[in-house]
Amino acid sequence: MSLAQQIQFIVEIDKLKQVLRQTLLTDESRQENSAEHSWHLAMMAIVLAEYAPDSDVDVLHVIKMLLVHDLVEIDAGDTFCYDLQGYQNKAVREAQAATRLFGLLPEEQGAELRALWEEFEAQETAAARFAAALDRLQPLLHNQQTRGGTWRIHGITYDQVLRRVHPIEAGAPTLWPFVQQVLEECIAAGYLEPKIV
Amino acid sequence: MSLAQQIQFIVEIDKLKQVLRQTLLTDESRQENSAEHSWHLAMMAIVLAEYAPDSDVDVLHVIKMLLVHDLVEIDAGDTFCYDLQGYQNKAVREAQAATRLFGLLPEEQGAELRALWEEFEAQETAAARFAAALDRLQPLLHNQQTRGGTWRIHGITYDQVLRRVHPIEAGAPTLWPFVQQVLEECIAAGYLEPKIV
Repeated sequence: MSLAQQIQFIVEIDKLKQVLRQTLLTDESRQENSAEHSWHLAMMAIVLAEYAPDSDVDVLHVIKMLLVHDLVEIDAGDTFCYDLQGYQNKAVREAQAATRLFGLLPEEQGAELRALWEEFEAQETAAARFAAALDRLQPLLHNQQTRGGTWRIHGITYDQVLRRVHPIEAGAPTLWPFVQQVLEECIAAGYLEPKIV
Repeated sequence: MSLAQQIQFIVEIDKLKQVLRQTLLTDESRQENSAEHSWHLAMMAIVLAEYAPDSDVDVLHVIKMLLVHDLVEIDAGDTFCYDLQGYQNKAVREAQAATRLFGLLPEEQGAELRALWEEFEAQETAAARFAAALDRLQPLLHNQQTRGGTWRIHGITYDQVLRRVHPIEAGAPTLWPFVQQVLEECIAAGYLEPKIV
């Protein structure tokens, strides 16, 4: 009974592989999907665990959070981070998606996974802030590799990017100097317009 | 220094998103890639943790193993599980890939990740056998959803599928009756030719 529900959930979440993000793969061949993006972030949590803001941060918890953090996009779609209009009803659309998707699971397990997603969204714990920092760092690396990729396509400015990556300073403070260095390199290479003084 | 190596590794593993497997997505729109496949397996480890063969199995360890288990395919490619010729030099090709890829990381961390991959390959621990069981179960579910998908395309027989899924009996014994039931359903639906008596 409970296994049938779990299998139904497992089959259903295959759809996350169809949700496209704005980020390009590093070879610029296509847009990234949210399932492979979630895998990449989980790998980053393993590799960059030492940069978590607090030694109490439980890596398993961060990985679980990253694996589930985009599931709601199966119904709600990926909202481009610079799309102000899309952000207006993002919370409502995603909460409805969470109710349907996590509702496929046995009650206790559904509640556990939903709590992980809600913790990520609320950004109130060190684990959630570290997870979010990785979620902001990865597209920055991709935009550097793709010579400005998404920024170029959508005319995104330095100020917008800075606001976008800024949570890394709180979520993974020891990575912040590196982020600033990447931004400088991107400006120097002409991938990003420097700030207007 | 160490961070630069870690970032290089993180950028490099983006290539796993380009490695295609024979498995089709559940809507049959395209082949699955090994990065999104790894995400799906890690999600299955979370959802199906209660079916691990031993209560001592550490879910974080299983998830880490599943996240890294296909990385070597970046250099070695995905070897189709029914390709006997490809399997002859698979081990050599993958060991070379492991040396290059995990060698990008700081030494201790590279050794830690390589050990996870080796543990998965060796199939000597309960955690590795549970991870492998999930890796065998997921394509079975996809083949059921895609009305025989890969089996149909490549003319795979019941006996071949049975050999392929058989490690689930040892890796997740309490899931085995369910696997047998799925096989029966696939035969009844005409997705798989029944065994010749």
